[in-house]
Amino acid sequence: MYAEFYTAILTGTPHRELEAFLGRPVQVLDRLGVEKGGKDLVAEAKGKEVCLLTAGDPLTATTHTDLLVRAHAAGVPVRIVHGSSIYAAAPGLLGLQHYKFGRTTTLVRPEANWSPTSPFDALAENHARGLHTLVLLDIKADEGYFMTANEGLRLLLELAQRTGNPWFDAGTQVGVVARAGSDGGVRRTGPVEAMARQDFGPPLHCLVVPGPLQVVEQEAWDLLR
Amino acid sequence: MYAEFYTAILTGTPHRELEAFLGRPVQVLDRLGVEKGGKDLVAEAKGKEVCLLTAGDPLTATTHTDLLVRAHAAGVPVRIVHGSSIYAAAPGLLGLQHYKFGRTTTLVRPEANWSPTSPFDALAENHARGLHTLVLLDIKADEGYFMTANEGLRLLLELAQRTGNPWFDAGTQVGVVARAGSDGGVRRTGPVEAMARQDFGPPLHCLVVPGPLQVVEQEAWDLLR
Repeated sequence: MYAEFYTAILTGTPHRELEAFLGRPVQVLDRLGVEKGGKDLVAEAKGKEVCLLTAGDPLTATTHTDLLVRAHAAGVPVRIVHGSSIYAAAPGLLGLQHYKFGRTTTLVRPEANWSPTSPFDALAENHARGLHTLVLLDIKADEGYFMTANEGLRLLLELAQRTGNPWFDAGTQVGVVARAGSDGGVRRTGPVEAMARQDFGPPLHCLVVPGPLQVVEQEAWDLLR
Repeated sequence: MYAEFYTAILTGTPHRELEAFLGRPVQVLDRLGVEKGGKDLVAEAKGKEVCLLTAGDPLTATTHTDLLVRAHAAGVPVRIVHGSSIYAAAPGLLGLQHYKFGRTTTLVRPEANWSPTSPFDALAENHARGLHTLVLLDIKADEGYFMTANEGLRLLLELAQRTGNPWFDAGTQVGVVARAGSDGGVRRTGPVEAMARQDFGPPLHCLVVPGPLQVVEQEAWDLLR
């Protein structure tokens, strides 16, 4: 039985607890352990049952879809056990309606000579159409790097300036969800400037930039101030 | 302990099995049992722990968000236990990337003198921007009505004509997911005309109308033909 925690992590469920709960050893694989060209899980699954545990819904990452495709191509049957996902959890935790979300975007950590503005495109498009945006934050598990909501909010402010989107400023209402689904989870709403100064605790964090709110959405939003 | 199955149903998990699994009686509530003006779950929760079971992630329906808001307003603490949701499951089952989905739309059963074209708007918008669309299908649990993928596909063809969207026709590739997450679940891809003639079995069904596919998406899509 294997697990991978480089596409997402299970907050509040350390490896040891996972093994204790399952009553068997769980080998944690890195990217090369799962992806094509690395350890061949599909070949191993030809001889016996192989289980790969992931955080969130198992098919939200390309790497898992690719694994599924390779298994099908090799004639290895695959059973998918769905899990709760940030795509469904974050909107709901903030009281927002899922059908009012445009496409999701992911912020990546700017490097010395590389800081793409493209992650803001989805925000701008969704804003123009009165839709909410789920903003996922960069994960580099191998480096132990998980972008915080604070970094993400400051980066959004910078990208808004560089892309000429003045509607997104320090006063813009945003929602933050931290450690969704765990007991110590946090969900809070407020203006960018105030939110960027708050401490939301350990990862994973994500952001939501809402469009115009309906009555019920506004009520929920205000309660989470 | 209560449950509601009018916003969604638990395929393959009858009421009796649910009670057997939980080892306690579960009272199924209808819309009036959950919503404002009906049975007051919030008032009951002031005196004791009250549990409301739902299918899918508990906060994807407005009715649950409203319940959350009323509980907060009454000072009743609420613990949310997330669940797997069609919003995350359907895209993944078809091998599509979540960040390439535009807003979701829901088809409603046309009535004698009422057949809105608005559900097609999201499709047209997403198509214009090269995004995928998750199409949910009408549920009228009290009438035992669950729109099938077949009805949905025929309705989409009609709406495409009425809204002047000839790009959506009998040959358009679509994906169908039925009973996502249950052992007898079905996921299939193909052109509208051929798909509308297939039998996908009992509800719930949903549809996906994809935009342009990436390499890995195309590989997965073709495998599910």
